[in-house]
Amino acid sequence: MHTQVLTKPDGRTLILYAREPFPAVADAPTPSRDPYAPNSHLRWHPLRGEWVAYAGHRQHRTFLPPKEFNPLAVTTDPQYPTELPPGRYDVAVFENLFPTLTGLAHDPPASIVETKPGLGACEVVVFTQDPHATLAGLPLWHLELLIEVWADRYRALGARDDVQYVFPFENRGVEVGVTLQHPHGQIYAYPFVTPRTDRMLESARRHLQDTGRNLFADVLAAERRAEVRIVASGEHWTAFVPAAARWPIEVHLYPNRQVPDLPALSAAERDELGALYVDLLRRLDGLFGVPMPYVAAWHQAPVHADRDLAWLHLELFSVRRAPGRLKHLAGSEAGMGVFLNDIAPESAAEALRLTTRVEAATGG
Amino acid sequence: MHTQVLTKPDGRTLILYAREPFPAVADAPTPSRDPYAPNSHLRWHPLRGEWVAYAGHRQHRTFLPPKEFNPLAVTTDPQYPTELPPGRYDVAVFENLFPTLTGLAHDPPASIVETKPGLGACEVVVFTQDPHATLAGLPLWHLELLIEVWADRYRALGARDDVQYVFPFENRGVEVGVTLQHPHGQIYAYPFVTPRTDRMLESARRHLQDTGRNLFADVLAAERRAEVRIVASGEHWTAFVPAAARWPIEVHLYPNRQVPDLPALSAAERDELGALYVDLLRRLDGLFGVPMPYVAAWHQAPVHADRDLAWLHLELFSVRRAPGRLKHLAGSEAGMGVFLNDIAPESAAEALRLTTRVEAATGG
Repeated sequence: MHTQVLTKPDGRTLILYAREPFPAVADAPTPSRDPYAPNSHLRWHPLRGEWVAYAGHRQHRTFLPPKEFNPLAVTTDPQYPTELPPGRYDVAVFENLFPTLTGLAHDPPASIVETKPGLGACEVVVFTQDPHATLAGLPLWHLELLIEVWADRYRALGARDDVQYVFPFENRGVEVGVTLQHPHGQIYAYPFVTPRTDRMLESARRHLQDTGRNLFADVLAAERRAEVRIVASGEHWTAFVPAAARWPIEVHLYPNRQVPDLPALSAAERDELGALYVDLLRRLDGLFGVPMPYVAAWHQAPVHADRDLAWLHLELFSVRRAPGRLKHLAGSEAGMGVFLNDIAPESAAEALRLTTRVEAATGG
Repeated sequence: MHTQVLTKPDGRTLILYAREPFPAVADAPTPSRDPYAPNSHLRWHPLRGEWVAYAGHRQHRTFLPPKEFNPLAVTTDPQYPTELPPGRYDVAVFENLFPTLTGLAHDPPASIVETKPGLGACEVVVFTQDPHATLAGLPLWHLELLIEVWADRYRALGARDDVQYVFPFENRGVEVGVTLQHPHGQIYAYPFVTPRTDRMLESARRHLQDTGRNLFADVLAAERRAEVRIVASGEHWTAFVPAAARWPIEVHLYPNRQVPDLPALSAAERDELGALYVDLLRRLDGLFGVPMPYVAAWHQAPVHADRDLAWLHLELFSVRRAPGRLKHLAGSEAGMGVFLNDIAPESAAEALRLTTRVEAATGG
């Protein structure tokens, strides 16, 4: 992996990644004419026991811009700079122009609840220079490079004093609010361990005390024995619809051994992950014959805690429950935290296993 | 309040409520020709530590039916029966044709996770016979009747052996997946205390141990002192945007004294609640000048626990963050449980206080 680190005129960092050595890139553009001085803060929700993040400037961010301007494309006309320079790189990472978490956060407002600066980072990961590509359509070496990029950012962000948890994810589809169609993901670096992770590790800790075993290992072993919810698997990884899936379409991808985070993967595990990741995304798209909106969420160990307990895995889920039908989070889910799932996990797994378009797509 | 209890041909119960005595209604119709034999089950999510509900038949439920058929309208042509008979009642409650929770649930499938029958109830509350009405447009006596209906159902459902928690709510707007436009709400009766309630009561219990005070009382008192987030208030109730609101539009309505549930309200509290509820809904609709999609969620004490700790309140929230813009739950919210809110609670409260359409609507 070859990298170049540049600084944009507004002060933001841009990192270019390529498989092959590539000529030096001189200038990092920015589409913004404003000085870069983001601010945000966190407020403690006393009844829920969790932090909520506030960044007022985000309300004005780019939303479905006209096709002629794509800030994630390579700059072709210097009069209309985008976020990316021309050059022979494959993947690019830069600080979000409208971050919710930022190392520059300062002076949180006083409130009746505890507040603190919204420290951390929000980065954009541009998967490819091709605005019409999809992740599932990229060659395997490109996927493997992307996995290395995520690992690199975990290391760099995890080394910062203000970061406790690093979260790479991809939101795809207008159905989940994605404002730019150019293939890209994001990385959030939080100054705390997230509620979801906290809860999961608490369950794992209790299970370890009760049984002496790792809960993730037990879940994985039980799914492998049961077989009915397995979607795909390899030597190093297993993809399954969890027995108590909350979303109509939900697949979890676990490494077969305890690995705390993406940097800890072996080369063989990384290679197979690339292939399986592509396989899963193609199954999702093949299921209803239309591009599936999804959230792909990487769960890793917190930077400084529970590294022997946590188990790296991907949670891939969709709000689409049928062609033309979405799952909305309403009263029971959003109000009470009780998910209603109309699709049996066994049926979802079977449909994903049988998706015939996978072969067409892989063959083509 | 006057009631009549009927049984539909398929065995479901229908309860009619009216302010005035009304002539006996002979027949309860049903639009279904199938025998009523719903089933559902719960699965325990070992990592999240929560129940997920499965009811496969719901996948086929009514979705945005053509305008000519409204199952919540009064039956006018006996050849096309709806859910409701003609008659001089004001509000009707019946068992959902496609319930996720039902007293009939039986024989949960075995799985690698714990499973149990999806016992409990899912009821539909038809607010009025007028399919074009809105809750905010109904006369006050009608709102007060509705509050009595909720209280009545809390008592009846709470008395059942299979029910631990009763949740009346309204989802409004296609943006939150509402399939029928006729004004209606729902009541879910769960066989467990919901994760959201559990969490909230856990925070309250810790606060009581630490300070000797009720957490809800402290939150309410602090909001009343701070004033900036108060939207509306009366002698018995206070409506405010919580200091750590998670949704772009979010209002909580608390009674000024500790009340565990809707049946425990005094007549004076009930009357003022009707007026304030209408006031809040009109403010929501007035804010962007278009009907606001929302979830209105009633938090009450569990039926058999924490009745001195819990504090009845309404949480009213919307996914709309601006005209034409929705808040989507994506990576950070749905993946990690960290909410990002682009609107400062103080700004939302100010906008809701100043909404001028409120006067027009109330005056008209």
